[in-house]
Amino acid sequence: MMDRAKIRLFVNEALGQGQTIPLDPAQSHYLFGVMRTAVGDRVAVFNGHDGEWSAEIAEAGKKRGLLRCLGLSAPQLDPPDLWLLFAPIKKTRTDFIVEKATEMGVRRIVPVLTDFTNSERVRIDRLQAHAVEAAEQCGGTFVPNVAQPVKLAKLLDDLQDRRLMFCDEALVGTAPALSGERGAPWAILIGPEGGFSDPERARLGDLDGAHSVSLGPRILRADTAAVAALTLWQSTLGDWG
Amino acid sequence: MMDRAKIRLFVNEALGQGQTIPLDPAQSHYLFGVMRTAVGDRVAVFNGHDGEWSAEIAEAGKKRGLLRCLGLSAPQLDPPDLWLLFAPIKKTRTDFIVEKATEMGVRRIVPVLTDFTNSERVRIDRLQAHAVEAAEQCGGTFVPNVAQPVKLAKLLDDLQDRRLMFCDEALVGTAPALSGERGAPWAILIGPEGGFSDPERARLGDLDGAHSVSLGPRILRADTAAVAALTLWQSTLGDWG
Repeated sequence: MMDRAKIRLFVNEALGQGQTIPLDPAQSHYLFGVMRTAVGDRVAVFNGHDGEWSAEIAEAGKKRGLLRCLGLSAPQLDPPDLWLLFAPIKKTRTDFIVEKATEMGVRRIVPVLTDFTNSERVRIDRLQAHAVEAAEQCGGTFVPNVAQPVKLAKLLDDLQDRRLMFCDEALVGTAPALSGERGAPWAILIGPEGGFSDPERARLGDLDGAHSVSLGPRILRADTAAVAALTLWQSTLGDWG
Repeated sequence: MMDRAKIRLFVNEALGQGQTIPLDPAQSHYLFGVMRTAVGDRVAVFNGHDGEWSAEIAEAGKKRGLLRCLGLSAPQLDPPDLWLLFAPIKKTRTDFIVEKATEMGVRRIVPVLTDFTNSERVRIDRLQAHAVEAAEQCGGTFVPNVAQPVKLAKLLDDLQDRRLMFCDEALVGTAPALSGERGAPWAILIGPEGGFSDPERARLGDLDGAHSVSLGPRILRADTAAVAALTLWQSTLGDWG
C-alpha cells in the first residue's frame, strides 16, 4: 500500500486504480486556495466504502480540479452494526457527540426527541458535514449516516431485533454489565440531560433486548456519557477486542 | 439529607452545621448579579472534602455576602487514586480533557511535556478554575488538583509504585487488556497527537508497572482517547464496578 498523505478528502466518486475524480468548487478552493497544493502533489481520498486511496492532483483551477487515483493507501474499515441514538443538546456538545461517534466507529447517528429534549432544531446537513470532517481529520474510511430526528416512541417501535444499550442517570451507582453475541445489531441510547420521563423509563424497562448500564457513581454530561458508552460497547462487543 | 439545590458553588471554607461562609466579590457577583438570588434563597456548596451542603443566603451585597450551612445534601465522593497525565494540545481540547477527567473521577491532572509536545504554554490557574467549574456543573464534590507541567522523563523517574496505563497510537489494533488489584495507585498517560518518540517508547516499554493498552483499530484524538481510557480504567479497576 502507498504511504498515507496528510491531506485527506472525502469524495462521492468511485475509487480505483487510474480512476479520475472531478473536484467541485468547495473542494478546489480547499485544496488549492487553503492548502496551497498544486498539480503533482498527492492527497488521500476516501468515499466511505472503497478504502483510502493516494491520489495525484492532475488539474488545478480556481473553481475546479481533477485528481487521479494512484493506489490504495489504507483498507476500508467499516464499523460494527452499531447506532448511536442521542437526545440533541447544545450545539457545541451535539457537534462533539457526532465527532466522537465518527472517530470511535458507529454506522448510524440518530437524534432522538424525548419528553425532556430541550432543543428540537437539529440541522442534519450540518451534522452530516461534521461527521465527514471528523472522518477526514482522524484517518477514518467510513462516514456514519446522520439520520433525521425521530421521536423516541416511534424509534423503539421500529427497532426490530436490534438490541439497545441504554444509559440513564437514574441508574447511577449500579454496576455496569454488558453481554451478548458479537456481530448482532445494537444501538446505544443516551438520554437527555434531564433524564427520561417516567413513561419513557417504563417503556424502556419493558422492551425486549434492552440492556440498561450504569456509567459509574458520578453524573456525566450527555457528551461524556456518549464516549464512555461507546468505549464500553466497543471494548466488550465491538471491534476493539 | 436535604434536597439538592440547582446552583452549586465551590468554596474554600470548612463546611458543617450552622457554619457561615463569607463570599468574595466574584462569588457575590455570580450569585446575586448573574443568578439573581436573594437573602433566604438556597444554594449548594462544596469544598472538595466535606461533601455537598445546602446553604441559605444570609446576607447579600454588591461585592460581599454570607451563606449559612443548613445540612448535608450529598456525601463526599472521592475518586480512586488515579492520575491523568496528558500532553497538552490545543486550548479547547485541553479544557475538554480537564472537564472530562473531573466528571469521570481522577485525583490529579498532570500536563506532561514530551518530545513531540507542540504546546508548552499551559496556564495552570486557568485549568484549575476549569476543573472547579466542571465539578460545580456536574454535581461533583471533589476537584482534582491540576499540577504544574512536568517533563515525561522526570515524571517517570518519580512514579514510585504507581502503575501506569499507557495509550499509544502505535499500538492501535492490539487488544485492550487491563488488570490489577483495586485500590492500587495508578496513572493514565495519553500521548501527544504525534505519538511518543522512539526513546520515549523504549523507556515506557522498560518501565516496571507499565501496562500498554489499545483503544481499538481507529485513530482517536487525544481528547477522545482520554475519555475512552478513563472509561476502561474506571469500569475495570475503579469505582464504576
